[in-house]
Amino acid sequence: MTTGHVSLVGAGPGDPELWTVRAVQRVRDADLVLYDALVDAAALRTMTRAQCFCVGKRAGRASVKQETITRLMIRAARQGKRVVRLKGGDPFVFGRGAEERLALAAAGIPVEVVPGVTTAVAAPELVGIPVTHRGLSSGFVVVAGQTGDGLNRALAAVRPNSLTLVVMMGLSSRDVIAAQLVEQGWSPDTRAAIVCGASTREEWTWTGALKDLGAVRPPAGSAGVLVVGAVVSIGETLAAGGTSAAADEVRYGRS
Amino acid sequence: MTTGHVSLVGAGPGDPELWTVRAVQRVRDADLVLYDALVDAAALRTMTRAQCFCVGKRAGRASVKQETITRLMIRAARQGKRVVRLKGGDPFVFGRGAEERLALAAAGIPVEVVPGVTTAVAAPELVGIPVTHRGLSSGFVVVAGQTGDGLNRALAAVRPNSLTLVVMMGLSSRDVIAAQLVEQGWSPDTRAAIVCGASTREEWTWTGALKDLGAVRPPAGSAGVLVVGAVVSIGETLAAGGTSAAADEVRYGRS
Repeated sequence: MTTGHVSLVGAGPGDPELWTVRAVQRVRDADLVLYDALVDAAALRTMTRAQCFCVGKRAGRASVKQETITRLMIRAARQGKRVVRLKGGDPFVFGRGAEERLALAAAGIPVEVVPGVTTAVAAPELVGIPVTHRGLSSGFVVVAGQTGDGLNRALAAVRPNSLTLVVMMGLSSRDVIAAQLVEQGWSPDTRAAIVCGASTREEWTWTGALKDLGAVRPPAGSAGVLVVGAVVSIGETLAAGGTSAAADEVRYGRS
Repeated sequence: MTTGHVSLVGAGPGDPELWTVRAVQRVRDADLVLYDALVDAAALRTMTRAQCFCVGKRAGRASVKQETITRLMIRAARQGKRVVRLKGGDPFVFGRGAEERLALAAAGIPVEVVPGVTTAVAAPELVGIPVTHRGLSSGFVVVAGQTGDGLNRALAAVRPNSLTLVVMMGLSSRDVIAAQLVEQGWSPDTRAAIVCGASTREEWTWTGALKDLGAVRPPAGSAGVLVVGAVVSIGETLAAGGTSAAADEVRYGRS
């Protein structure tokens, strides 16, 4: 019996030009691609003759269950197929990639991981905000924004007003997160940013003070990253032409 | 007068197949490439007819000064050249990329940033260690390992035994960092890893307990990433074939 294999592949923040060379190769050579909602499906389908199925959540519609995705991958690989599991950003950053890799290893399926450009770093970067910067921030923290014990523990683990904080999937809970940070001792005037749809045509950015983060209204249905820390001022300086200091609140389009 | 432009481009952890599609395009179309020591120079030179200069530190030899690099970029762009500044990993993660972007903006040079696969995430990932994992770690922290106030502040900003800690450029100060973490309250038995040369032929990995990190002897002259946290056990499980629990200390080659 022939055994195929599975590649767990990161697709980066959105723009297919930010896929890695290996990601393009694996997709081109695949028999089956299971992709997440944030992946550019139109671009994907121009690149490959593989069967392509969206298995991710989109605009509230229920996603395919994790167990189902794993079962599909194992079955296809056992049929000798080259399977690509294509995920937004990097597969090992809140992507449940390691869970999938463990399940595939336990089933005896050959599996490789192809790292991608993580949205945690690239979304701020694409609008001029560096997660680290000499004199402003000597490190950064990445957490997921779904409210609950995990988020509470993660936010409590970081000393207020210290490192740059990046919150992924935190758009809908931005008011809770902002309030919680201020309560924990972050200055309400800390610079903050929301970056939606980075590297896509829907790119949308807001910057302002942490205390105003909860009241911002990003475009409906968009996915986004929150950034909290002094480094946001670099993006504001660049958006203002690279020469002036930060404005009180800035909105800007594609950079 | 024609004005050229500058692309600040991330080259990922090492393997040129982990460059982005846009990185390859920019290098192919460039007139001048200024690259860091961790970039695969042989691969670079097969890809482009541009003039290529290494401006990064290598094995202790002094690097070209930051001001000189910036001046070279500005002069070439003013001559109408397409300049690529190629950096290991991602240009905005401890890469001084934002400083270069600010300097170029101030000089009126058109500049774009092309995000790369950050070594902070990819190096552990390529040896099976996810920086986040349900039930083990709900976030991760990335700091730079050069000893000094910045490192002290960064390490003190993270509550012990909470999030995954990734230390870049911390190989030579691993003993100091391990001792400092234990002193701050991290358990001496916390799982830890060293990953050198991820995605290259020189890949080398050690995993074990935090208390033993300082005594490990990685290959001379290698660059590496330190990882501290329970997620290291996932890599140990995968290295053991995906079925067994963690060993006391594990060394493994390319995955």
